[in-house]
Amino acid sequence: MAIKEGLRPGGRSARVQESVHTAVRELLQEQERASITVPQIATRAGVTPSTIYRRWGDLAALLADVALARMRPDSAPAETGSLRGDLQAWAEQYLDEMSSEPGRNMMRDVQCSQTPGYCVTILGGQLQVILDRYADRAEPLPSVDRLINLLAAPTVFRILFASAPLRVEELHQLIDLALATPAAADE
Amino acid sequence: MAIKEGLRPGGRSARVQESVHTAVRELLQEQERASITVPQIATRAGVTPSTIYRRWGDLAALLADVALARMRPDSAPAETGSLRGDLQAWAEQYLDEMSSEPGRNMMRDVQCSQTPGYCVTILGGQLQVILDRYADRAEPLPSVDRLINLLAAPTVFRILFASAPLRVEELHQLIDLALATPAAADE
Repeated sequence: MAIKEGLRPGGRSARVQESVHTAVRELLQEQERASITVPQIATRAGVTPSTIYRRWGDLAALLADVALARMRPDSAPAETGSLRGDLQAWAEQYLDEMSSEPGRNMMRDVQCSQTPGYCVTILGGQLQVILDRYADRAEPLPSVDRLINLLAAPTVFRILFASAPLRVEELHQLIDLALATPAAADE
Repeated sequence: MAIKEGLRPGGRSARVQESVHTAVRELLQEQERASITVPQIATRAGVTPSTIYRRWGDLAALLADVALARMRPDSAPAETGSLRGDLQAWAEQYLDEMSSEPGRNMMRDVQCSQTPGYCVTILGGQLQVILDRYADRAEPLPSVDRLINLLAAPTVFRILFASAPLRVEELHQLIDLALATPAAADE
């Protein structure tokens, strides 16, 4: 499987990717995901099935690539003027998106990919953008890993394995915990 | 799907469940999971396919039930003499088990079940056993939800969606955080 990054818009490779991704997104809206086939996608995208197999390996990898592309945010995380505010806006949006039906399908597809780790890379990138805005504040900043463990992990785990998703108040408590100074966290 | 709890050993229903579960576990060791069928399981278990469909609904639900049964611990969590020690022993074993190939398969099967929330119920039960041992200590105890969010969630999330599982040192830091008093967690 190849998740191609850094493709220049307008290049041949980028145009193939865009057209295949669009075909998958359209088909997902029109029919059951279980009934979608590679030849069908190829016809819709105007490429040969072998182009798809060569580039993505198999259907699961292609669906995962489309899911990951959807995860890549269209815009920078909201800027509220404070670290806590930015994290809260980001985490609430993440909880909303992952709880939705497309969010759940995306998580399922990503797990079938050969590079599910790319998921945390994307999240980490978004969180780093937020942290960079507050690099000059006096208090120590939490690490990206800490934010992923304390905010993203419970959000997703509860959606996948509990009978109810995180409540927003729980999410706010987790943000408090993530922002507590490391010293305060020692018993 | 019906996950039957509280069945009396030796009852007809319990014997059917045991024999079907055993058949599934044996077949999983002998062949690819994707090639296992309900009629095959029925033959091995000495029941009719309709018994299986009536009781479990479909193959995915049956596989999930077997996966959940495996999650139910054989014994109480290790007793080390301290809350921190018990949580550490529990969390390290959980990380080990979930990182293994059977653990990953189990998580996949459980997600296909109609009652994935049962997973957190089982984890919560184990953690409650640990907390009950220290009910009379002076410091406030963390809630089960807090332990699930801070210990189980990052463990599973990192296995499913990151390129590397949690390191044991990270797990220990999360235990510190879970045991920090709520007051200390406020910024």
